[in-house]
Parts: sequence; structure tokens; C-alpha cells
Amino acid sequence: MYYPEPISNLIDGFSRLPGIGPKTAQRLAFHVLGMKEDDVMDLAKALVNAKRHLHYCSVCQNITDIDPCRICSDQSRRRDVICVVQDPKDVVAMERTREYGGLYHVLHGAISPIEGVGPDQIRIAELLRRLQDPEVECDEIIMATNPNIEGEATSMYLSRLLKPVGIKVTRIAHGLPVGGDLEYADEVTLSKALEGRREL
Amino acid sequence: MYYPEPISNLIDGFSRLPGIGPKTAQRLAFHVLGMKEDDVMDLAKALVNAKRHLHYCSVCQNITDIDPCRICSDQSRRRDVICVVQDPKDVVAMERTREYGGLYHVLHGAISPIEGVGPDQIRIAELLRRLQDPEVECDEIIMATNPNIEGEATSMYLSRLLKPVGIKVTRIAHGLPVGGDLEYADEVTLSKALEGRREL
Repeated sequence: MYYPEPISNLIDGFSRLPGIGPKTAQRLAFHVLGMKEDDVMDLAKALVNAKRHLHYCSVCQNITDIDPCRICSDQSRRRDVICVVQDPKDVVAMERTREYGGLYHVLHGAISPIEGVGPDQIRIAELLRRLQDPEVECDEIIMATNPNIEGEATSMYLSRLLKPVGIKVTRIAHGLPVGGDLEYADEVTLSKALEGRREL
Repeated sequence: MYYPEPISNLIDGFSRLPGIGPKTAQRLAFHVLGMKEDDVMDLAKALVNAKRHLHYCSVCQNITDIDPCRICSDQSRRRDVICVVQDPKDVVAMERTREYGGLYHVLHGAISPIEGVGPDQIRIAELLRRLQDPEVECDEIIMATNPNIEGEATSMYLSRLLKPVGIKVTRIAHGLPVGGDLEYADEVTLSKALEGRREL
């Protein structure tokens, strides 16, 4: 213990955050000492407020400060399509495209037998309950889970569950990223891109 | 603005810290949402306390929560030698050696004409005032500024200032780091190591 207690407490606190080791925590703590008191207060308040005022939307399970969330309660959005994503950050990524005007459902994870995550550990039950509601007029579910084994497994699982009920389940396309280079594309992506070719 | 306000405020707050970009800030903010409320409160309190309760020691200019700091007021330490460092973190590094039992003086920077930092911008005046005090019985100043141009310039400046007053000024040794490899040592370090050779 070479540091005065207030700063070693702060270093401890920072180093508990993900991806922040003891050296970075020390650098951040010393930066805080040089910050304006108001800015430090704002950061402290933001921390507490984020934890206190955010919860999950009862409809789409996204993170929100009002319930239902802004997207679910936005009457200008299409109500016949629900995009299923793994994470609240994915909603933000989808919204950034400005192409999608429908609703979302956040699973908070993907099925992964290796990590012991089954269908019951992610919010699939909430989606099924939502679809059973007679007021919900959903015709299509767009599966926008990540393009990896877990994401694919989750997509397959949900499509098998929902197809018998008569709901169309689609999957976002695999292929080459825009601006990418054919030469550096891995063979799986390239074969997916070939498979998903379209007539011009 | 796709995020609810409490979380976008927190992302903003994190991204103002050094070395934290928008992606990391987002990851940290989402981590905070998953933390226990008590842990979040502790971090927020640590932030505020670090800012409120820490100031500079009136003697050595190190960061402290009491004045004079624990090192300056520790009567078991040698009072005839002062180690001059650039940064409070350097005091911690020196203390970690468990070899040095004297006092410190923290300059909070080094002379750097390129960055517009002159002798007046760092705490040299405080050191001179401290040495003028008849109660201070300092015989030796150890310059432990960083081994780069700015650190060397600061060392040279201080030694020229203090030698006429009759105070011995020494500089910590340059050489190969322990565990280092001669093959990979740069030529400047190697020639400094040669220059500083000692009889066995």
C-alpha cells in the first residue's frame, strides 16, 4: 500500500472493469485527479443513474429507461416484423443502418451448449409469449443473431419452433462485407457469398 | 441517439477518460449495467472521494490525503537525502524497491521546450524554497527523472542550480535493465552502460 487510500480505492474500482488492468486503472485514477470536480461528479452520477434508471423493456427486452421502450411505443414503426438480435448493442447497430423500421426482440445471448447456455437461459420464452398475444400482428421474424456457430444454432432453433405456427422466419444474408477484398475473404464467407448470389 | 439517456451519458463519461474510445466506453457502460448496485455505488463514491480528499503535500508535492504526507511525516526515514521525481507514480515505483528510505520531491513534469514547459511550469520553486528552510538538513539530491531528453534536461538544470549552493546532486544510473539482453539493447543504453562500468 503505497498510495493514499482514496486513490487506491479508485484504482481498485477501475481495475474491476473489463479489459482494464492495474496499469490502466492507475492511469485512469490519476487522470481523474486532474479532472474538474464537476466532470468527476457527472461521471459518478452517470454511473449511479445508469444502474438505477435502466431496466429491460417488458415487450422487447431491450435496455430502456421507460417501459415500454421508445422503439416499442413508437407508432410510426412497422408492427408486422420483429428483428431478433442477441444484444442491446445489436439494436443500436441495426438502427444505425436507418433501413429497418420494424420492432426488435433482444435475446440477451445465444444458444451455446459448450458454455451451458440453453434455450431457457436466453429470452426465447418472452418472444413466444409476445407472439401469442392476439394484439401482436407479426408476419415475419428476421433472425439477426451473430454469424457464428452460436448465432446460427439460435436461428435454427427459433425457425424450427416458429415455422409450424405459420410465422415466416428469415435470416440476414451472409457474404462479403462492403469494401472487403475477395483475396482476403475466408473460404466459408466466400462460399456463403456464392451460395447467396442474386441475379442482376 | 439510439441509447436511452442514462446509458448514453455514461458512455460519454467513460469516453472522456484517456485511452478509452467509443467502443470501449460502450463495453464498459454495458458492464456497469450488469454490475451489482453496491459495486457501482462504491465506484461512484471512489471517484468523488479521490477528487475531494486528495491534494498535494505542502512539503514534497506528492499526492496525499493528509498534510504533510505519510512519507514526509514518517520520522523513521532519512532526512538528509531527497529524491526528485517527475510524477507521483514514480514515488510508488521507487518505494516498491524497498531500498530507498529518504524523502521525495515531485516535480509534476519535466522541462520540455518543445511542449512549452519551462522551469516555472514544474515545481522547482517549491524544491528551492524547501532547501532554503534552515530546518531541512539535506546533503544530497538524487535526480530520478526519466531517462529521456526532458528528464536529462531537468536533471542538468537542477544540478547547475544546486551545485553552487553546496548541495551534492546525483543522477540514478543508466545501463542495461536487469533480465535484459545485450543483443537487443539499443546503442545509447549500451554506451551508457559501458560508460558507467564499475570495478568488481
